[in-house]
Amino acid sequence: MAPHDDQPEVEDEAMVSDTHKRPISTIVIFIAMHTEALPLVNRFQLKEDHDSLFPEGVPWVRYHGIYKDLHINIVQPGKDSALGVDGVGTVSASLVIYATIHALKPDLIINAGTAGGFKVKGAAIGDVFLASEVAFHDRRIPIPVFDLYGVGLRQAFSTPNIVKELNLKIGRLSTGDSLDMSPHDEASIIANDATLKDMEGAAVAYVAELLKVPAMFLKAVTDIVDGDKPTAEEFLQNLSDVTAALDETVAKAIDFINGKCLSEL
Amino acid sequence: MAPHDDQPEVEDEAMVSDTHKRPISTIVIFIAMHTEALPLVNRFQLKEDHDSLFPEGVPWVRYHGIYKDLHINIVQPGKDSALGVDGVGTVSASLVIYATIHALKPDLIINAGTAGGFKVKGAAIGDVFLASEVAFHDRRIPIPVFDLYGVGLRQAFSTPNIVKELNLKIGRLSTGDSLDMSPHDEASIIANDATLKDMEGAAVAYVAELLKVPAMFLKAVTDIVDGDKPTAEEFLQNLSDVTAALDETVAKAIDFINGKCLSEL
Repeated sequence: MAPHDDQPEVEDEAMVSDTHKRPISTIVIFIAMHTEALPLVNRFQLKEDHDSLFPEGVPWVRYHGIYKDLHINIVQPGKDSALGVDGVGTVSASLVIYATIHALKPDLIINAGTAGGFKVKGAAIGDVFLASEVAFHDRRIPIPVFDLYGVGLRQAFSTPNIVKELNLKIGRLSTGDSLDMSPHDEASIIANDATLKDMEGAAVAYVAELLKVPAMFLKAVTDIVDGDKPTAEEFLQNLSDVTAALDETVAKAIDFINGKCLSEL
Repeated sequence: MAPHDDQPEVEDEAMVSDTHKRPISTIVIFIAMHTEALPLVNRFQLKEDHDSLFPEGVPWVRYHGIYKDLHINIVQPGKDSALGVDGVGTVSASLVIYATIHALKPDLIINAGTAGGFKVKGAAIGDVFLASEVAFHDRRIPIPVFDLYGVGLRQAFSTPNIVKELNLKIGRLSTGDSLDMSPHDEASIIANDATLKDMEGAAVAYVAELLKVPAMFLKAVTDIVDGDKPTAEEFLQNLSDVTAALDETVAKAIDFINGKCLSEL
């Protein structure tokens, strides 16, 4: 480092502009649930990685393959070793994304998944949104500055051309580790001005920023949070159909991304 | 793997009993806040690691040194790069512990820190507890089996001889990403039968189990959750004094651990 100590900013800028100007090569798609990932695994004919990037014994899964000019990786927390359910939520998401970035150094992360939507903010079942910003709604730390750290508001990587090409709805995404919504969660979600509610996005954004990889968020609405049906029931009822809509949108996004550099998205 | 496919359990048992029978060599102490760590860093004359184990650019900190027959490492999330406050909570804790275990393969993890205590369960300001079990109280997923995954109840590594030697109080620890306690959190904490409430423990336990490293939890009470003072105020008021009590207990635990194997704790 010594010879460059007086010009780190110039170096950083040079690296960033280099990454932004060459065609995107490696993409990591993080999807929390197996049901959500399966259509994309099949569509891109990805193979499961058996010589794992990940430490021995963890249930994390990577599917990968080449599609056009892209190395596509779908990573997932996999099934909890003791309970056999998908490892949803912020802790698993953080770990899998961290280990994946560390191993693959991707050009772009796409967090694709299902979410709850607020009809008052224009969401309907089956809509696929691109998140403009992400934040947490269940990390209340009422001490100055810690409060902002808890909320962890972050901008998603800006992709105006994808939005135009795919005619996507745009909204803010709020993340918490509960599928339901307590009154405290609701107040924070309103403060976050969120259209969407999920269980991983803000954690993915946190790790991506920590390791300096751009991240975008495609979220398909499985349930209306401010509607009259119980979330868990509506979520399970719509999961399969909405996953098909998500699959279509991610596939179109991938086709658009192919051959382009970050600054063209 | 092929030659051993028919006897993995025998192999695992042999490895475990080897680890349990040789003297403990490398200890990782995870402490979320700098104020909580400083007395121990000074006491053991640990040096900050400048040739970091961790990826470039992350704020994570490791202090390390030799004390008697032990390699002692204190790891912390450090200061949030944008906001300058300690990176408290489950996501940072998970990442730091994951990266540390990956790099150091420690024999034992000690999560030391402050916590809220419930007087109805016998906690008083300044008490240092050893956690018997840990669980989450803010991951409500009302779908069968997912509900158990959300709670994430785990046993801490059993250390009956440390409890006896140090005359420690014992209680269950419940973890969430908020410093305050909503009614929903409270209901889950009661369901978890918890004496203590913190912001990292169950995440540390999750990662430790994932990577098969025993973990113990020493938590000093800074505030009475079911008392009449606001948590943030009481926490900040008692942080320094209670940290001194925590420092004493961790130091005694380290002295007891030195020269022993896991099965003697």
